[in-house]
Amino acid sequence: MAQDIRAYVEELARAAKEASRPLGFASDEARQTAVRAMAAALRENASRILDANAQDMAAARKAGTTEGLLDRLLLTDERIEGMAAGLEKLAELPDPVGRVLEHRTIDQGLDLQKVSVPLGLVAMVYEARPNVTADAAGICIRTGNACILRGGSLAQRSCVAIAHALADAVEASGFPRDAVTIIETTDREATGALMSLRGIVDVLIPRGGAGLIQRCVRESLVPVIETGTGNCHIYVHASADFAKARRIVMNAKTQRVGVCNACESLLVDATVAEVFLPDMLRELSDAGVLIHGDETACGVCHELGLVQGEAFVPATEEDWGREYLAMEISVKCVSGLDEAIAHINRYGTMHSEAIVAEDPQACERFLREVDASSVYANASTRFTDGAEFGLGAEIGISTQKLHARGPFAAEALTTYKYEIRGTGQVRP
Amino acid sequence: MAQDIRAYVEELARAAKEASRPLGFASDEARQTAVRAMAAALRENASRILDANAQDMAAARKAGTTEGLLDRLLLTDERIEGMAAGLEKLAELPDPVGRVLEHRTIDQGLDLQKVSVPLGLVAMVYEARPNVTADAAGICIRTGNACILRGGSLAQRSCVAIAHALADAVEASGFPRDAVTIIETTDREATGALMSLRGIVDVLIPRGGAGLIQRCVRESLVPVIETGTGNCHIYVHASADFAKARRIVMNAKTQRVGVCNACESLLVDATVAEVFLPDMLRELSDAGVLIHGDETACGVCHELGLVQGEAFVPATEEDWGREYLAMEISVKCVSGLDEAIAHINRYGTMHSEAIVAEDPQACERFLREVDASSVYANASTRFTDGAEFGLGAEIGISTQKLHARGPFAAEALTTYKYEIRGTGQVRP
Repeated sequence: MAQDIRAYVEELARAAKEASRPLGFASDEARQTAVRAMAAALRENASRILDANAQDMAAARKAGTTEGLLDRLLLTDERIEGMAAGLEKLAELPDPVGRVLEHRTIDQGLDLQKVSVPLGLVAMVYEARPNVTADAAGICIRTGNACILRGGSLAQRSCVAIAHALADAVEASGFPRDAVTIIETTDREATGALMSLRGIVDVLIPRGGAGLIQRCVRESLVPVIETGTGNCHIYVHASADFAKARRIVMNAKTQRVGVCNACESLLVDATVAEVFLPDMLRELSDAGVLIHGDETACGVCHELGLVQGEAFVPATEEDWGREYLAMEISVKCVSGLDEAIAHINRYGTMHSEAIVAEDPQACERFLREVDASSVYANASTRFTDGAEFGLGAEIGISTQKLHARGPFAAEALTTYKYEIRGTGQVRP
Repeated sequence: MAQDIRAYVEELARAAKEASRPLGFASDEARQTAVRAMAAALRENASRILDANAQDMAAARKAGTTEGLLDRLLLTDERIEGMAAGLEKLAELPDPVGRVLEHRTIDQGLDLQKVSVPLGLVAMVYEARPNVTADAAGICIRTGNACILRGGSLAQRSCVAIAHALADAVEASGFPRDAVTIIETTDREATGALMSLRGIVDVLIPRGGAGLIQRCVRESLVPVIETGTGNCHIYVHASADFAKARRIVMNAKTQRVGVCNACESLLVDATVAEVFLPDMLRELSDAGVLIHGDETACGVCHELGLVQGEAFVPATEEDWGREYLAMEISVKCVSGLDEAIAHINRYGTMHSEAIVAEDPQACERFLREVDASSVYANASTRFTDGAEFGLGAEIGISTQKLHARGPFAAEALTTYKYEIRGTGQVRP
């Protein structure tokens, strides 16, 4: 059985890889046309997609799925229109393929060009969010890649219905329909099979929770772009404008709590803790944020009359490394910039880190010495986002250093090749 | 015991990672000075290094090591001077760190800069070639990275002596000596330990044979830059200038056989096989190249009076995927450009691939449609090399698509970060 699944996934992947070839050297216009046809196909097949989604929703309800997950799974006419409009926006993106990155004459007059090309076959593994199917397929086709998709099992019928509509459109645009391939089994073995296909699948991008991402990082032989986990800090320096600091912390912690660029930990210079923390902790507590404090922070909470075990708890060593994704924050006093930087470099996840300080030298040292994809002076970590950074359609936020770091978009789905044109040259 | 080795390697790596911090934001001049001091240290410590090497050589001879390996292991005054001169050349390389890759104003007047930064801690695993120690440490320090090195066990004493001299020089230049760290045990477990240190080691670069590289690709949790294997083809199109084709094939096959950019397989359009192959196969055979031929090629060999089993053998399916690294070549007739491209995309290793053709359209299709790091029209595959491509000091030739593809150099040891400077901005 496991063998059957493996053979099935490998067969799909080989066909998808073959389908990537003509896409790889298709013109910009041809790929734009295909993506627009994909948008149209979603609209035309809306009722079929909604039917499949209704079945997924019914099964999910029966299985006792939480309201939050059900909401992510639900499709409506409006949401399908949103997916279609998203595809049309992708069609307008500038083409990242075929750019001449370098051009020079080398040994014996050989003409060398370094040219951007698609990666080939992109695998995306995601959870029960049907809209990712259109999003992922769209960005792949736009950039000249084929894709093999693996959606969450709760959303299986919806994802398959969407993928079939998109594949039809790709085929009608003159490309092989296997360029949009979806794995049509909910067997867990299929993900393992996909991760073993090094040499066929060119990159694996997991989009989902920490469990999924860690499984891919640990098991995959296919290169992975690791996304997601953000244990983001805000460090309040002795020179900080405290009102600014409170505004930034409140925004980064509470504006949206379930996202990877939300603040999870507050560091404060010990010299200003007694002045800064009372108002800050009061404001956090009033907003319903549970405080995991060090000794000083817990002392301030006490003085504010907050109830231990309800409004605050003593932080443990484990708290410094936690991504709460909830109305919780850890708070720690540090001796100054050096300790703050060392703490962040030790416990951070290289996602988004901020300093609040009026001293420009402190800001510059922080920006330079903190090892993270996005480092801020006097702004909320919540800005880490492909659209905010002006990158176009974000695929994810990479917390690794190779290939793509921080928010990444279409360009991360390209590589390059060297083209050398000669007249018979040989190496002496 | 295994636990002890793991703890030892992790402790070394953590110290090296800490040492990478000050290097990461040191000035260009400070890093140049350190690399020059490393060169001087090799010269000053030459006799100590030669003593260590003499012990390695004696042990290797006793163990019955082949002459080829012994030659790679041997150090002489001249070779040490070569290593020192190599380091001085590295010091002169343009700085790949601190380049502003993008700069723009985003939401609410936030100032965003994308800046190149060092990777952090680079691990290099290599075989019994002591010179790689200086080479690897030099390029890492030059680019602001710390390194943790693991040399082949036959060269252990030589590698340690070199690394200690380099670490002394780094320390004398004002950086932590752990920035050049060598693993001082020959226990195989140490490589496994190194490969598990994701989050501490930022990249692992294996430099050596296919066995070492495949082990790293399969086992490493640390991101790997895969190098090395080259099953390179030369495709002779019907429109080819046959004299040119023969010259290119002879160069690519015989000029140096043990290298990854050497030709391993010859594809010939069937329509010209009877005209082209007799002279070509005669010339290859005269040079001592064993021919693994398809039916047509074996037929030509017969007609030339070559002896089967000595000068030629029938090719098996396995031959199409082999990297001989020897005076052997596989020869196959194809029906034309389509089959040639499909064959290469199936059996090649995405290293270096060449077409010989006078028809410019055939050349352009080949360059576009073959999926390899370096694609040639009318030139020998032997040009695939960092120095030939004008990249400065080559680290290796990547056969993967992410981060670095083809010959790669200093720039591949950098990543980037986004620096965002604000005045209190929060996300609405």
